[in-house]
Amino acid sequence: MIIQKTENSRISTFDPNNFSFGGTFIDHMIICEYENGKWGDVKLVPYGPIPFTPAMMGVNYGQACFEGMKAYKDKDGQVFLFRPEKNFERINKSAKRLAMPEVTEEMFLDGLKALVDIDRDWIPQGEGMSLYIRPLIFATEEALKARVSEKYMFAIVATPAKSYYSEPVSVKISDHYSRAANGGVGSAKAAGNYAASFYPTQLAIEEGYEQIIWTDDATHEYFEESGTMNVFVRINDTIYTPPTSEKILDGVTRDSFLQLAKKRGIEVKVEPIPVKTVIEAQKNGTLKEVWGVGTAVVTTVFQALGYQGEKLALPKLSDADSYAATLKKDLVDLQNNLSEDPFGWRVVVDHALETV
Amino acid sequence: MIIQKTENSRISTFDPNNFSFGGTFIDHMIICEYENGKWGDVKLVPYGPIPFTPAMMGVNYGQACFEGMKAYKDKDGQVFLFRPEKNFERINKSAKRLAMPEVTEEMFLDGLKALVDIDRDWIPQGEGMSLYIRPLIFATEEALKARVSEKYMFAIVATPAKSYYSEPVSVKISDHYSRAANGGVGSAKAAGNYAASFYPTQLAIEEGYEQIIWTDDATHEYFEESGTMNVFVRINDTIYTPPTSEKILDGVTRDSFLQLAKKRGIEVKVEPIPVKTVIEAQKNGTLKEVWGVGTAVVTTVFQALGYQGEKLALPKLSDADSYAATLKKDLVDLQNNLSEDPFGWRVVVDHALETV
Ligand SMILES: Cc1ncc(COP(=O)(O)O)c(C=O)c1O
Ligand SMILES: Cc1ncc(COP(=O)(O)O)c(C=O)c1O
Repeated sequence: MIIQKTENSRISTFDPNNFSFGGTFIDHMIICEYENGKWGDVKLVPYGPIPFTPAMMGVNYGQACFEGMKAYKDKDGQVFLFRPEKNFERINKSAKRLAMPEVTEEMFLDGLKALVDIDRDWIPQGEGMSLYIRPLIFATEEALKARVSEKYMFAIVATPAKSYYSEPVSVKISDHYSRAANGGVGSAKAAGNYAASFYPTQLAIEEGYEQIIWTDDATHEYFEESGTMNVFVRINDTIYTPPTSEKILDGVTRDSFLQLAKKRGIEVKVEPIPVKTVIEAQKNGTLKEVWGVGTAVVTTVFQALGYQGEKLALPKLSDADSYAATLKKDLVDLQNNLSEDPFGWRVVVDHALETV
Repeated sequence: MIIQKTENSRISTFDPNNFSFGGTFIDHMIICEYENGKWGDVKLVPYGPIPFTPAMMGVNYGQACFEGMKAYKDKDGQVFLFRPEKNFERINKSAKRLAMPEVTEEMFLDGLKALVDIDRDWIPQGEGMSLYIRPLIFATEEALKARVSEKYMFAIVATPAKSYYSEPVSVKISDHYSRAANGGVGSAKAAGNYAASFYPTQLAIEEGYEQIIWTDDATHEYFEESGTMNVFVRINDTIYTPPTSEKILDGVTRDSFLQLAKKRGIEVKVEPIPVKTVIEAQKNGTLKEVWGVGTAVVTTVFQALGYQGEKLALPKLSDADSYAATLKKDLVDLQNNLSEDPFGWRVVVDHALETV
């Protein structure tokens, strides 16, 4: 790895109690270029612009995929990644579906660790605090032809992240728009999936909702995901989540929730969730909770479901009674080294770059 | 419009008889930036790089759409655009579906004309020659949050383009992969649609085909498009093409073919095309032609259809007998000012920038 430390650290301008998530960037980034059929050197360089013309293929044809993951700092200042190998596997799954070159485990994990290590002072500490990390691969060749690019960049950028807390939201069960096609790219973290979801989400917001529960595009009879989160439904004391598929992203948080639920002895069923079943359960009082899970906020609890023009209220449970809240606490405690880690999910980021 | 002419024209290095389509860029480009809720000045500047970090939202979330259109030079050196108002309407349709700001007619058409005017020497003249023009809009804000961007760039870049001629190809009728979902972005020229099609196309190529005929994602029983072209089928002496929809791009070439066919008195039916009907027609000998249409090559004729492991041959028609070849010639002649233009499709690009 080629390391070029910044000579103008911005860390003194960073106030961990007052910053904008997503728009504040740590001092460095990782970049690595692909050309002539192979990846070049991984470089750790100052965060900053790279010159691209508007003919860049990543922008023109959406040949780009990304990951979203976090680093956590415990009360002793130790820094951890959470299940980074899952993100490594997923970025390559996405890359493959978009006909892009896969990255090596070394590029991905060593790059990640070096970046988090060198900029560890940027990681805010305390409840809900973390560093949000964005690895991505995108086509960089300049050409006006809709074909596979011959040049790519792998990059890792990161931004400090704040509290997980998110208010309960109302979600609309989609009856027209969809995020994934059969035989499409729904299971990839493909750039284009996100832009495609913005307009339907804006329409849902105009109708008084905060998010959309995506349903299958052909019949709208089955739950898929919610916003950019995997979705869980609790009926009586059983929790349900749809199986991952070509249309559903294999979320790290989803998988972690499933394992944590099993550990607690909560009954979990991974099976298709018919909209009808959820609506019936709401009507007969057996629907206890519906929530979304993802790296960004861990859990968003839903307070109402919009369906066919009706807003169906969900019960308000205490944290003790809520599976969503219980499992979220289990996960957050594990991520922040406040509890044991029987699964081996935490990965310590060693101090390796201090002598540089 | 702000005009900044290049001081280092590359035109002397351009050989109109030997250049790579898509990778050769004309001297200038148009750019215009959107910020604080409005578009700034349109600028005509030297083609070249613009600095972006890997956190650029256009790359991360695929919030980007584009157009593809051409300028033609007739034997007297007069330069024409072809139905540019159709591309103007379509880029805004795409922008809306991707929650991006629409561009004004002035930005789009004046930008287009100024660029083509100033770089008219880059337009190769002769059969099949043209300038391929790429207007695009993409999100430029740097932020690691999957939400609508607050900054955009509208740009127009262009590359000289060569012969329309394309060999007859074999196409696979898709039975698994798809390019569009119900309630998705198939009718937009959304960047992400193209990346999504690369991998399925590679698989089809490995099976001995050149392209895919996309079918509906739920049942694969209906034709949608072929590659990045709209598709036409001729059974006996009637031509069929699917109606445009949420899943099918409203192609300018498709529309032009429909009008040219009507003018010739060819029977045209715009209706869903069942795969079964096409296969049956192939078996009973009534299937005469299947072809794709689009700005890039005008027409690609198919010589065989792959379906359920079989390669079904299509007849080889003479140009005189082929509707595809006849309509292509009608269109190309009109575009190149070799025939009358009863539709008012040609738009002359005046010499306006010579005094600059
Ligand atoms: C579409 C979509 N679904 C689900 C998730 C949740 O995945 P993870 O738990 O790995 O963050 C994400 C990413 O955050 C996503 O983009
Ligand atoms: C998906 C798709 N379908 C069809 C077409 C044909 O459209 P047009 O005739 O406007 O070039 C294009 C663009 O070339 C396309 O990208």
